[in-house]
Amino acid sequence: MAQNPTLILGIDPGTRITGYGIIEVLSSGIRTIDFGCIRPPADLPLPERYQILFEGLETLIAAHSLAAIAVESQFVLKNVQSTIKLGMAKGMVLLAAARKKIPIYEYAPKKAKQAVVGTGQASKHQVQRMIQSLLRLPQLPEPEDAADALALAICCAHNLRSISCMNL
Amino acid sequence: MAQNPTLILGIDPGTRITGYGIIEVLSSGIRTIDFGCIRPPADLPLPERYQILFEGLETLIAAHSLAAIAVESQFVLKNVQSTIKLGMAKGMVLLAAARKKIPIYEYAPKKAKQAVVGTGQASKHQVQRMIQSLLRLPQLPEPEDAADALALAICCAHNLRSISCMNL
Repeated sequence: MAQNPTLILGIDPGTRITGYGIIEVLSSGIRTIDFGCIRPPADLPLPERYQILFEGLETLIAAHSLAAIAVESQFVLKNVQSTIKLGMAKGMVLLAAARKKIPIYEYAPKKAKQAVVGTGQASKHQVQRMIQSLLRLPQLPEPEDAADALALAICCAHNLRSISCMNL
Repeated sequence: MAQNPTLILGIDPGTRITGYGIIEVLSSGIRTIDFGCIRPPADLPLPERYQILFEGLETLIAAHSLAAIAVESQFVLKNVQSTIKLGMAKGMVLLAAARKKIPIYEYAPKKAKQAVVGTGQASKHQVQRMIQSLLRLPQLPEPEDAADALALAICCAHNLRSISCMNL
């Protein structure tokens, strides 16, 4: 594994915005391949928004030879309807991963924050700044959802390899 | 519309069991085309279970020239994780409908019960018995999830046409 670059896609799913981030894990460290977000037009009916999200994920997955996908495992409950909507967005991620037979790993947001900032209580801005520093990005990764997705990918990399090998 | 048979697919989504029921609405009444459930093996990882559900729904939709799909709009909240899982299952329904451009309608379980039993407080067994009677089935529709799906389809039929035209 140390000889073969490993691509990991992190995804922070949401009905309005789904952040994504792809990192390459090499024996010499981590580099950013791509990050951004899928933002279906908010005025479309929900089924079409999920279709755009699903097809965007399919395109991302097809464009890279991924070793793993990392996604959030826990969500804060606001109300039943928003939790169902979040579940529907997450369902698109699981389906896109399953159809391409990419292993999917789930991490609590707290664990992803710990992996990059060192504390599960970090703010979204702290995560952005630490991601910028770790990945030597010229500016803060935007939107926040993309930074969260990169944090999930880094957390996944930590868990798939020992941190000591990663030379972060 | 009175001359053209209209097929409506009702779906009661769930992570373990997803009930479905297809009815044909004619000027002379309603008849059952098919009902049953999709039950992915419980020992498979969740992504594969959603894949089986999605592909099962795709097969159902491809096999019939559907005018509409009806799905539950409200769920009882047990906890965040089970609500997210239910959302993921419902996401498969919305995606399968969107990809085939079938209009999807959502109804609260209470509304579906009212449509078939006359009261939103009906038990699942009452719904089964009334579905059996309305659709002249030789026995109780099983599992309950399939009866609930047929109730959603009937509720959808009521809402797409006036009840007085349906000659139930």
